[in-house]
Amino acid sequence: MINADRLWQRLMRLAEIGALPGGGVDRQALSAGEIDAWRLVIGWASEAGMSAASDLAGNLFLTLPGRDRSLPPVMAGSHLDTQPTGGKFDGAFGVMAALEAAVSMAERGLVPARDLVVVAWMNEEGSRFAPGMMGSEWFAGVRDLAAIRATKDAAGIGVGDALDWLHAAFPDLAHHAAGFPVAAYLEPHIEQGPVMEQQAQVIGVVTGIQGKTTWEITITGREGHAGTLAMADRADALMAFARMAVAWQAEIGLADAAVKFTIGRLVVAPNAPSVVPNRVTLRIDLRHPDNAVLNRLGARLETIAHELAAPCGVAITRLVDAPSNEFDDALRARITAAAARHNLSSMPMLSAAGHDARHLAPLCPSAMIFIPCRGGISHAEDEWAEPAHVAAGALVLAEVLAALVTPDA
Amino acid sequence: MINADRLWQRLMRLAEIGALPGGGVDRQALSAGEIDAWRLVIGWASEAGMSAASDLAGNLFLTLPGRDRSLPPVMAGSHLDTQPTGGKFDGAFGVMAALEAAVSMAERGLVPARDLVVVAWMNEEGSRFAPGMMGSEWFAGVRDLAAIRATKDAAGIGVGDALDWLHAAFPDLAHHAAGFPVAAYLEPHIEQGPVMEQQAQVIGVVTGIQGKTTWEITITGREGHAGTLAMADRADALMAFARMAVAWQAEIGLADAAVKFTIGRLVVAPNAPSVVPNRVTLRIDLRHPDNAVLNRLGARLETIAHELAAPCGVAITRLVDAPSNEFDDALRARITAAAARHNLSSMPMLSAAGHDARHLAPLCPSAMIFIPCRGGISHAEDEWAEPAHVAAGALVLAEVLAALVTPDA
Repeated sequence: MINADRLWQRLMRLAEIGALPGGGVDRQALSAGEIDAWRLVIGWASEAGMSAASDLAGNLFLTLPGRDRSLPPVMAGSHLDTQPTGGKFDGAFGVMAALEAAVSMAERGLVPARDLVVVAWMNEEGSRFAPGMMGSEWFAGVRDLAAIRATKDAAGIGVGDALDWLHAAFPDLAHHAAGFPVAAYLEPHIEQGPVMEQQAQVIGVVTGIQGKTTWEITITGREGHAGTLAMADRADALMAFARMAVAWQAEIGLADAAVKFTIGRLVVAPNAPSVVPNRVTLRIDLRHPDNAVLNRLGARLETIAHELAAPCGVAITRLVDAPSNEFDDALRARITAAAARHNLSSMPMLSAAGHDARHLAPLCPSAMIFIPCRGGISHAEDEWAEPAHVAAGALVLAEVLAALVTPDA
Repeated sequence: MINADRLWQRLMRLAEIGALPGGGVDRQALSAGEIDAWRLVIGWASEAGMSAASDLAGNLFLTLPGRDRSLPPVMAGSHLDTQPTGGKFDGAFGVMAALEAAVSMAERGLVPARDLVVVAWMNEEGSRFAPGMMGSEWFAGVRDLAAIRATKDAAGIGVGDALDWLHAAFPDLAHHAAGFPVAAYLEPHIEQGPVMEQQAQVIGVVTGIQGKTTWEITITGREGHAGTLAMADRADALMAFARMAVAWQAEIGLADAAVKFTIGRLVVAPNAPSVVPNRVTLRIDLRHPDNAVLNRLGARLETIAHELAAPCGVAITRLVDAPSNEFDDALRARITAAAARHNLSSMPMLSAAGHDARHLAPLCPSAMIFIPCRGGISHAEDEWAEPAHVAAGALVLAEVLAALVTPDA
């Protein structure tokens, strides 16, 4: 049902765009690299008779036309953007597996009953423009386009300008409306955790996505001369951060075995060697599968920040507040059955990472297919998935998609 | 002996170059702003018949010629570069007070017995290119030009290129040799601490500069996905930093009332919101007037870093290791006497901050003249010195310089 060699070769070809010396990929959202990636996948889709379109949020849609074009399409895919030191598989595997399923279907002369759409959502990662999942959130109607366009990267470039630049590079693409009806959504992805590898399973049938809260916190102190300002007279924003970080790690990061607590981004001002820092801005990412625990730890995190800030001030903004969700039972059953038919081991599992599928789930029956990745490593240059697992995930996806786009499905 | 109004007006004019909205100045070393500042002071010096010269390290020398030009000159000055959010007085006061003394001397038709040289040392602050005091250290022969030129700023621009750019802007300037003989060196400066203001003293007779050690420390962990990597499996470089910072603050920052402990600069990599940080690079600035205590605390600081790094790695480099020094007794007596003659209160005091004078002291009799600054605040936009104190400091300097450049001095 798929050409596993072609899929692998195309994945490796895609990974050349933004390739890093350590084997990873830097292809952040709306970058020149992502534009090059669009050209490549649009070219592959076009060879198979698929058409390309975008929308106001910079999502990419590649459509294999069905017999009845008035029916809502079946959609599958993921994203093409990466972390600044990301890997070859996160996002790219999902888009390429869906494209391979569509291309193989076209090659075999099969005309689906309804459109099959391969999607690449804009800015899933949120590393250049935070927070991520901008494309799917706009599509799902949970985020405003003006707010998305106003978001700036570290260099001061706005999403608005970057989106205009993307669209200017593809002047011939039609633009779809946000939230057009979708019959079903499937997202293949690497697990980004060690569970499947440890349990020697090939296909993960994702039950849902663990809840996540993210914050931007700004600690404000007073600048001063490192050689003259007495320690007792200081309001050192970086020292206030260190106090909070140690307390957060003890009370929240180590609260139980399921919690994930990360301070991934931190910027110090004025960041000069002999000046007491007057401002620290940081991002916190807290996840937990149990929504009640997530809420309780989130509240405690904010209390600790307020308790330990003095003599500095602290401002706390919640950026994302996403509880755990559950994927569609019927789709999960189809994935399990498809794996069994091909003698691939499978296991139900919670996704520890967030994905665009979270935002499609309220719109249409949605599900995710996981494959293992080596050592559970992701968001890193040495992220790796075995060719056999890539092929297995794409095969299960192709089988489920084929069933969904036939009239009797 | 000086024109206090002109001195103040010129100081305020100089502060317009790199002016910040909050009243401060951003005129970092070898920037376009510093080139503009050179043009301004060279112009003022030239109106008074003084000549300008530079050297391979980008120091600026403005010479009022003496009767016997073969004698070693008397030198006075400070620096024109600022912190990224610095003030109007740090450095600029010393250069402008020395220039005012020379210009007033020329105006009164006095020809000194030997050259009087006003100096502006290159990159005292060390904020753009670290560590600072590059110009005076090269002049004193304690730092190699090739190493200075190879130092890069955060944008990857090297001192070498920036120096070539500076010199290209002043193609007519002669270049002096490093370490040419100097008869005496005087550096006026704001105190950058609260002691003189608290004790209502106008002139600080600086006895020496407190010892200082600086480090660059790199903590290395492993990248990972914020949503999937179990806390127990993490090597989070930022969390290792937080542990160290809290321990350093307790054991070193609060060791006694005289210690100054600052982490002014810290950079996180990859600094993406949903990636566990794999590298933190930071600068530490530790000062203490007692060399034995400085050495002991410095050793303890390194031990703590090694003890608390695990599961991360840590690399520790000492950048500066400068013990406390003592300024020239005879020059200190001249400063005290000059203050007394003008009915200005004065006090002996240690400099808590480092200054270029530290590096001149081994070459020739050297001393510093302090004036108070409001609230002891410096390296900040609201740094402020009273016009009466600026005038008093310049007057004392002019009187000491006049005595040094007469044959019977």
